[in-house]
Parts: sequence; structure tokens; C-alpha cells
Amino acid sequence: MIDIKAHSIDELNTLAEDIRQKILDTVSKNGGHLSSTMGATDLIVAMHKVFDVEKDPFIFDVSHQAYAHKLLTDRWDRFDSLRQFGGICGYTKPKESKYDYYVAGHSSTSISLAVGAAKAIALKGEDRIPVAFIGDGSMSAGMVYEALNELGDRKYPVVIILNDNEMSIAKPIGAISKLLSQTMAGSFYQKFKGRVEKVLDHLPEGATYMAKRFEESFKLITPGIIFEEMGIEYIGPVDGHDIESLIETMEVAKALGKPVLIHAQTTKGKGYEIAEGTKEHWHGVSAFDLKTGEAPKKAGAAKAATAIFADTLVELADEDDKVVGVTAAMPSGTGLSAAIKKYPERFWDVAIAEQHAVTSMGPLAKEGFKPFCTIYSTFLQRGYDQVIHDIALMDIGVAFALDRAGIVGEDGETHQGAFDISYLRSIPNMTLLAPYNETTMKHCMRFAKEYDHPCAFRYPRGAFLAEDTESPAYELGKSVLLKEGEEILFIGYGNGVGRAQKVAELVEVNPAILDLRFVKPLDEEMLLRLSTQYKKWFVFSDSAAQGGVGSAILELLSQHKVQDVALTTFEYPDAFITHGNTKLVEESLGILPEQLAERIV
Amino acid sequence: MIDIKAHSIDELNTLAEDIRQKILDTVSKNGGHLSSTMGATDLIVAMHKVFDVEKDPFIFDVSHQAYAHKLLTDRWDRFDSLRQFGGICGYTKPKESKYDYYVAGHSSTSISLAVGAAKAIALKGEDRIPVAFIGDGSMSAGMVYEALNELGDRKYPVVIILNDNEMSIAKPIGAISKLLSQTMAGSFYQKFKGRVEKVLDHLPEGATYMAKRFEESFKLITPGIIFEEMGIEYIGPVDGHDIESLIETMEVAKALGKPVLIHAQTTKGKGYEIAEGTKEHWHGVSAFDLKTGEAPKKAGAAKAATAIFADTLVELADEDDKVVGVTAAMPSGTGLSAAIKKYPERFWDVAIAEQHAVTSMGPLAKEGFKPFCTIYSTFLQRGYDQVIHDIALMDIGVAFALDRAGIVGEDGETHQGAFDISYLRSIPNMTLLAPYNETTMKHCMRFAKEYDHPCAFRYPRGAFLAEDTESPAYELGKSVLLKEGEEILFIGYGNGVGRAQKVAELVEVNPAILDLRFVKPLDEEMLLRLSTQYKKWFVFSDSAAQGGVGSAILELLSQHKVQDVALTTFEYPDAFITHGNTKLVEESLGILPEQLAERIV
Repeated sequence: MIDIKAHSIDELNTLAEDIRQKILDTVSKNGGHLSSTMGATDLIVAMHKVFDVEKDPFIFDVSHQAYAHKLLTDRWDRFDSLRQFGGICGYTKPKESKYDYYVAGHSSTSISLAVGAAKAIALKGEDRIPVAFIGDGSMSAGMVYEALNELGDRKYPVVIILNDNEMSIAKPIGAISKLLSQTMAGSFYQKFKGRVEKVLDHLPEGATYMAKRFEESFKLITPGIIFEEMGIEYIGPVDGHDIESLIETMEVAKALGKPVLIHAQTTKGKGYEIAEGTKEHWHGVSAFDLKTGEAPKKAGAAKAATAIFADTLVELADEDDKVVGVTAAMPSGTGLSAAIKKYPERFWDVAIAEQHAVTSMGPLAKEGFKPFCTIYSTFLQRGYDQVIHDIALMDIGVAFALDRAGIVGEDGETHQGAFDISYLRSIPNMTLLAPYNETTMKHCMRFAKEYDHPCAFRYPRGAFLAEDTESPAYELGKSVLLKEGEEILFIGYGNGVGRAQKVAELVEVNPAILDLRFVKPLDEEMLLRLSTQYKKWFVFSDSAAQGGVGSAILELLSQHKVQDVALTTFEYPDAFITHGNTKLVEESLGILPEQLAERIV
Repeated sequence: MIDIKAHSIDELNTLAEDIRQKILDTVSKNGGHLSSTMGATDLIVAMHKVFDVEKDPFIFDVSHQAYAHKLLTDRWDRFDSLRQFGGICGYTKPKESKYDYYVAGHSSTSISLAVGAAKAIALKGEDRIPVAFIGDGSMSAGMVYEALNELGDRKYPVVIILNDNEMSIAKPIGAISKLLSQTMAGSFYQKFKGRVEKVLDHLPEGATYMAKRFEESFKLITPGIIFEEMGIEYIGPVDGHDIESLIETMEVAKALGKPVLIHAQTTKGKGYEIAEGTKEHWHGVSAFDLKTGEAPKKAGAAKAATAIFADTLVELADEDDKVVGVTAAMPSGTGLSAAIKKYPERFWDVAIAEQHAVTSMGPLAKEGFKPFCTIYSTFLQRGYDQVIHDIALMDIGVAFALDRAGIVGEDGETHQGAFDISYLRSIPNMTLLAPYNETTMKHCMRFAKEYDHPCAFRYPRGAFLAEDTESPAYELGKSVLLKEGEEILFIGYGNGVGRAQKVAELVEVNPAILDLRFVKPLDEEMLLRLSTQYKKWFVFSDSAAQGGVGSAILELLSQHKVQDVALTTFEYPDAFITHGNTKLVEESLGILPEQLAERIV
């Protein structure tokens, strides 16, 4: 581990350069998050100089900007394996290193974690201080506000380092974002302050009180007011690349003994000219050519499910001006950006705010619009109560488009889209459906558009496993028997249909294949009919087994006292699934088609 | 319906008195929410006078303070049935009346809903304006902040009426709460303002700019600053009982054409002397004597599960100073108040902020403490992602104590604790257990205290169905066979054990009874053994069937290819469950012991 405590400022600057180069080399080969982590490097170097990673909880928000922290602790030599199967995780992970205090892949948790750590430290009476490192993009989520409320009220000593690179994955909205972007002409402010002080001398009585009020009024023209009002000391804005002065500032903050926020301004992509100053594109990238910044074109790659969704959504919006939609800070990731661009009055990016995204679509549905609420499977967990209480209870036609359903590859365990079927299936009034290729995706979306009740459809990261084919339109609760067979029935849901088809090609038996289409409501008629004909059922779905597709079918069979069907499910096991190339991850789970074919024999 | 538009101010004041009397009479008979709704009456009368309930969306937050609205629209004659089975719901409910724009039983959704309604209205080009009515206690949840961010940014015309009775169910914390309680001596403020204006005349140059800054500085000494900073106009504080001036203020707000918040101060319990000025006690009450304010004592009522929890938690905290805990604004409801009172350094009320409550307990567990995260089953939905991402992924020993699991009675469909098993069971590293009487509750809590992984235990509102008995301690994944029988096996989980016992007493057959104890992990050994002996299984659990206890058992049997067991589950059907006396509600679902006994025959 690098002994940063002994480094001079010059050595620290050199170290920061080395770190950036290492990040750049690695990400250009492996892909990963780039611009935020490059910009955060100087801050993290200063943080390691001032605070003690051996004892102080270093809490990184989202933590994709924490690569420098990983390099500074014990992972320099292994860093080439970043985001690869069995390699270094793209996010902080305590199982990987004791220097990673906490897991973080979803945003806006760091201040709550720092409050919890501060409580533990206070109870133990130890001399440690939690440091929360958070990007400006993470400031929009409600969790941050809830945590600041308690922190400002109870005044735990916590240092918050706000890495402000105006980076939030997409367009930041909201009060804090606006405050952060206020730039006051420093010299004017200083002159004004001087003048006001003179004026104060002329005030007759009660001057102390008034002076205090005037002092407070100055804060209005700094971005700090909102934090100060919440009971959090504010220092800033400071230059997030000036390591020497960052160290001084952090020393001051550390010594304060109360909650304090350091507002540091950084340049996104710092150190890689091609990425500097760009926004969304360089946030997370695939492997690219260092010289040109260009990613190698993949020849003949199948169209990603997200792209099919994005194109179809614009088509639907063209046809019907009742079609509206929302994303929570993922316009590009979800493909909603095309619709936002074409119809800015009907499609909204509400920043990282899944709760608000879900609930705000409710009245639109009530008023006769058709909202597509487009959120990754893993992030809808943040809006779970809102799905139940604000949409399903109202029984209104909000369609949830769940991108990144299934294994997401390199982002790993914090991002896997494993649980959506399990957590949505028990919600009354909810309909769950899924497409398995381009044509069924379009059908699925048309169904959702016309459907007057809550529904959710899921689709994978990248391309569907199945080839495109002709396919009938979706009818509520109706499955489609793709082929008849002998004795054995394969039931596929969503991307599971493609998996079932691939397995069918590999086995010597001749299974029937059912495109389930709806896991809620199930196609009772079809399933009961098939139960008389096929006695060995295999379920394919890229989702958790507990409470999942197989479970739903077992419930149905049990209700109808069908006892002579043996069901095996090939859904995910009951464990958090690691990061890495999707194929390698699937292999580790034994769910590659060739592996499943062997398990069937 | 009352034609309020034609009323004079005097008539409106009389009407408000009548409404309060009607509420008081009804709640004293039926129980219900009292002090907030009494205090809100004048505001609601003014709101109905200024806005048009026939077209403007009236959006009540939590909506237990909306009784006056119900009386003013079409429910005066039916109001005697408040909160009774088949009667008027204690919350707004569109199915009950077209004047209830939206469902609300969970807090802090109103501003998101108003934003959604404003978007719909803008797209339709209609002349309507959403009015969100929200109490100060609801302001602590992150959803509010997420919604204010978008509202302040996009500037939809929305009127927010903030009913500030310093009422939030428990102690309010946080910045907004603090700002609201700031009282400035009005006369001093006016004098000061006058003086500053004079000073301004002496400022040499750039005076316009400076005047603007000075003007802004005044806002600092009003509670409005935080809203103004977010882009929301602020009017207040105003007297929330002066109907005439409220009407004027609301007219101004309505005409502004942009987001505006009216901060109205009201007296809790207004109009009922005994309740005025008290806090938690008169928030929600059972039937009481109008003259004395006292509730009739229930002779020999069994100890409520919450009380057992509360007492045991203090015992555990006495024994071990590592025991800590949190509630999200429900210290009395969850019984955590006793522990908070005795150990204020180790038990925290973090206000309505379930996300932060959950996540902030993570580091405490990591640091060796044993947090009891005490949240109603229905409200943990608000912290779902946090359970997965911040607790289960870390695989640390946070214990979730889920109060109000099962049917909660008069609060009804927004509050039923139906889904927790379904939404928690698919989470890896999670252990789910449940007690069924006083002794097992204590065992359960001791198990949770010693257990180093995430776990959740659930218990009902009110008393357990089962009598107290001797019972062995809890062992991970071990069930207890309470009695052997013939042919038929009853499997009970939590309160379901008591239900199973009652049914067993009513049927002519002789069922074995299993206290399942753990729905995750299941007692595989026991269940497989029993499957050889008993072929008809009946599952009893006060929870949703989809993905629930029966479903878990079916998954296990399927894995082990046990095909000769017929399973019937008596869990809840796939529907939102209405309000009313629990027994009547259970009867409507056909799950009273006598009904189940008949179904078994």
C-alpha cells in the first residue's frame, strides 16, 4: 500500500497523475466509469492524506468514482482486472478490501451511512471521523435530504466532500444543482462585503443582532445557504484539483467537530483531454482507443433491447399524444433521450428521484395519459412503495418499462435486475409481462399503451437471446405455444424464451416451448391443458427463483391440485450475483444453454 | 353537497364549527384521527371556497386530516360510518367519491402528485390548478424534496398549503421543522426593515442590485428561505384559523401562476379543549367519552404484540449496550418510545424517513452493534431498496421488527401489512421469522439479537391470536411440531399458528400442527419428513399468498420432487384489503377460524 502520509505536495501531485494514467489505461481496455473518477482523483488523494483510511470510515457515494481510492489502498497490482469476472469490482466492496468501508452502487446513500457510522463512533467513544464523498448528481435523491435533516439536527462530526463536476449523469435539476452552478463574481462580492461593513457602522442600535443578520445575508450569495440552513457548516467552493489547498481545507473541516460540507469544483475527465468537458458520453464507457477516444465498432451486433424500446416509444408517441414518460436521470441508459428530444413537453428527466418519478406519473394516468415509467429493474426498488401505494392502489394505467432485467454484466451485484418479478408479483392490480425479441417488444409496448391498469414489462441489457420472428399481438394473460413436443415442456419468460430455444437445440429430447408472456396473470387455461400432456416442466427466466416465475406456476398448479407435473426452474439462485462478462457470470451460475442442456439430461 | 361558494364569512365560520362538532362526535364514537383534522378544518373550508373541487385536484397528504373535505363534499350523511367496515374510509379514496382525487395513506406523496397533475393540466391546456395540502410532519420524507426540486425547476402553477400544527406524529426533526418553529417578533422585524430601507438610500452605486440582495436577506428571517431557494414562492406564516384572511391569501396564491407555498399555523385539536395543545395522544384515538376525553378500559384484554416487543427491547437493551434501534416517526406506534426514553443515546426517531432509517443502521451493525429497525410492514416498502442494497448486500446483522403485519383494521387498504414476506423473501442473505405469542416473541427477539445476518420478524397489530405457552428457543431454520395428527398437517407462520390452532379445535379431523417459525430458510428436514406422513397440508399466515409462505413451501417440495402432497393456503387473496373492524374484514375474506374450518371439511 502506498504510504501517502509521507508524501510531499509535489509527490502527491505526481501520484495523482500516475493514478489518472492507470485509470485511463485500465478503463480504455476494460471499459468502466471514466470522467467522474478522473475528476475525483485529486480530492481522493487529499482525502487519504488528511484522513486515516485505517480507522476513518471512507464512504463513497455510488462509488464508481472511487477508483483512485482502490489504487491508493491495496489494489494497484490487481487493477488490470477491473470489472472483469473474478477481478476488482467497479464499486467499493468490503469483501474485496478492508479499506472499502461499505457497498455502494446505487446513489445517495453516503450521508445516511456517515450518520450511522458517526452514531457508532460516538457510542464507542472513539477518535474517528466518517468522511462521505458524494457527487453533485447524487444530491437530488430524497435519501440525501432525509440524512442531512438528521445530521444537521444531531450535529455528528461528519465531513462531506461534495465533488461538484456538474456531472450528474444527465441534466441535473433542482435547487441544490442550481445553487452549485451559481457563480458569483468574487471581486464584486468582496467589494460589496466591504461596503456593507461600513454601512453597519452607521446603524444606531441593536447593531450586534443586525450584524449577525447581515452576515447571514452574505451567505445568500454563496451556494452554501441551503446547507447552513440545514445545520451543516459549508466551506466552498474550493478548487478540487489544488491538492495543497484541499489538504488545508480538509484539515480545517476535520477539526471542526461538527457536520461540515466541503464544496469542491472539479473538471470531469481531468487529465484526458478528449473526455474533459464532455458530459454524458464519458461517464461510463466500453473499451476505447486512447488516442482517438473511439470505441471499436462491433460488426453485425444485434440491436439492443433498449434501442428497440427507444425507437418504439417514439413511434407510439408520434401516433398518440397521450403517450408520456419519465426517467430518473437515465435518459441515455434507458433510451428515453430520443423521446425527450422530440417531445420535451411529454417526456421528463426528473433527476435521481425514483420515488417522485413513479408517483408523479400517477395523476397523468388518472387524467387519461399513458405514462411509460422507464427505470432499471434494480432502481425501481427505490420506488417500490410508490408502485404499490400510488399506482397499484389507484389501479391506473402506468406502464413500467424495466430495463436491465437479468444479469447486467460488469456493474455486478448492486445492479443485477434479479428481483423485479418477485417484488412486483404480489402487488394487486399489477400485470407483469415480457417480450423476448424485437417483434414481441413492440407488441408488448402496444399492449402496455392500450392497457388501463398498472403493468410492468422487463427486458435485458444488450440484445435479446432470441432471433426476431413473426409473432402474434399480446392479449392479456395469453401465452403462445411456440412448438409442440414430447413429454417435456420448456416455459420461457422474457429473455428466458431465447434461452429455452437455445437449450432445445442442444438436447436430444423434443421439448414443447411455451412463450409465457404473462407471469401475472398466468395463462391458466393453457397451462392446465399442457399439464395433461407434458409432465416434465422446465422454467427459463432471467430472474430470482424465490417468488419468481416457477413459483407463480407452482402456485397455480397447487390451486388446481395438479400433482403429476415435475417442475424444475432455471432461474437465479438465492445469492447476490457477482460482476463480470455476462457469459462468464452465467457460466458460474450454470445457466449457459450448454450447461442447462446437460442438467436436463 | 354544501354550496360553500355562496356562503358569507360568518356562515363559513359557523360551517367550520359544525364540521368540527361532527368530526368530534363521530371520532369519539368510532375512533379515528382527531387533532390534525380538527386543526385543518378552517383551512379546508377556505380551500373549498377559493378553489373548485369540481375541477381542481384537491390532493391531501396522508389524508387523515381530510375529514372536513369529506364532510364538505358528499359524505355528511354517511359520516357516522367513518372507518367502519363498508363505511367511509379514514383516508381519501376515489372509489368512495369523485371528490377524492387520489389515494393517500402513506405520507409525503402530495407534492409529487401535484406535479403530475400539473403536467397533465398543462398538456391538456385546461384552466385548473392542483392544490396540495400537507402537514409539517410530512415534510421530512425524501419524496417531498424530490418533488419540490422538480416543481421549483419547472415552475408549474401549484398551490401547496402547509398545515403547520407542529404536530408531526412524534418529535419533528430537521431543517424545515426548525425553520417553521422560528418565531420572529413581528414588530422588530418591521422596524428593522424600515431602517434598512433608509440605509439603502445611502448606498452609492449598484444600488438596484444591492437592494435586491438586501431584500433577499430579509427572507432569511422568515421561515420561507428554504422554499424560495428551491424556486417555490413562499407566503406566511398566516393564521390558519382566520378564514377570511385565508381566503384572501389563497386567492393571491391561486393567481400567481407559479408554484407557491402558503405556510399556515394551526392549533392541533382546535375546537376540543381537552385535545388542544396535546401532541401524540390525540393524533389517532379509539372511541372515547366526549366529556372526560377518556377511553373506556377494556377488561382483561390480552397484551398487544407491540407492548411485548417494547418491553422485551428494553430488557435486551438493559442486558447489552450493543442493542440500538430506530423508528421513523412512530415511537409510540412501534413501542420504541420506552427504549428511547431510557436510552436516548442508543435509540433514535429519525422522523418520517424510512430510507434513511434503514441505511443509517447499516454501519452500526458493521461496527458491532445490534440495530432493531422498527418499522410497520407497510412502511418498510419505503425502505425496500435500502434493505436490499445497504443491509442484505453487506450481510450484516440488522434486525427488522415489522409491526402491523397482517390486517390492521380501520386504517385499511393503504396500511395492511400484507406484502412483507413476498418482498423480503427473494432477498439473498435475508432470514425471515415470526413469533405467535408472548413467549415466542421473546425468543424471536433473542434470536434476532444474537444473529449476525439480516433478519426480519413480523407481528400483528393488537394481541396475538394464540394463548401464551412454554416454547423452546429459536434455532435458525428450525420449526417446532406442536402436535402430531392424522393425515392432515396445519402449517402456521406467525399469527397463523394461532389461527391454525383455532381451526384445529373446530374441525372433526385431527390435524398435526407445525409452528413454522422460519419462512426463510425453511426447515427442509422437518418438512420433508412430514411430507412422508401427511399428504394434505394447509398453510396459515396473515400475508399475501403470491410469493408468500405457501409459495415458499411449494418451491421446496418442487425442488425435492415431492409430488404427493396437496397444499392449500389460507393466505390473503390477490387484492387490496378494505378497512373496518378486523374480524369483519377477515370474515369478508373467509379467513375466520369457523369459515376456514368449513372450507377444510
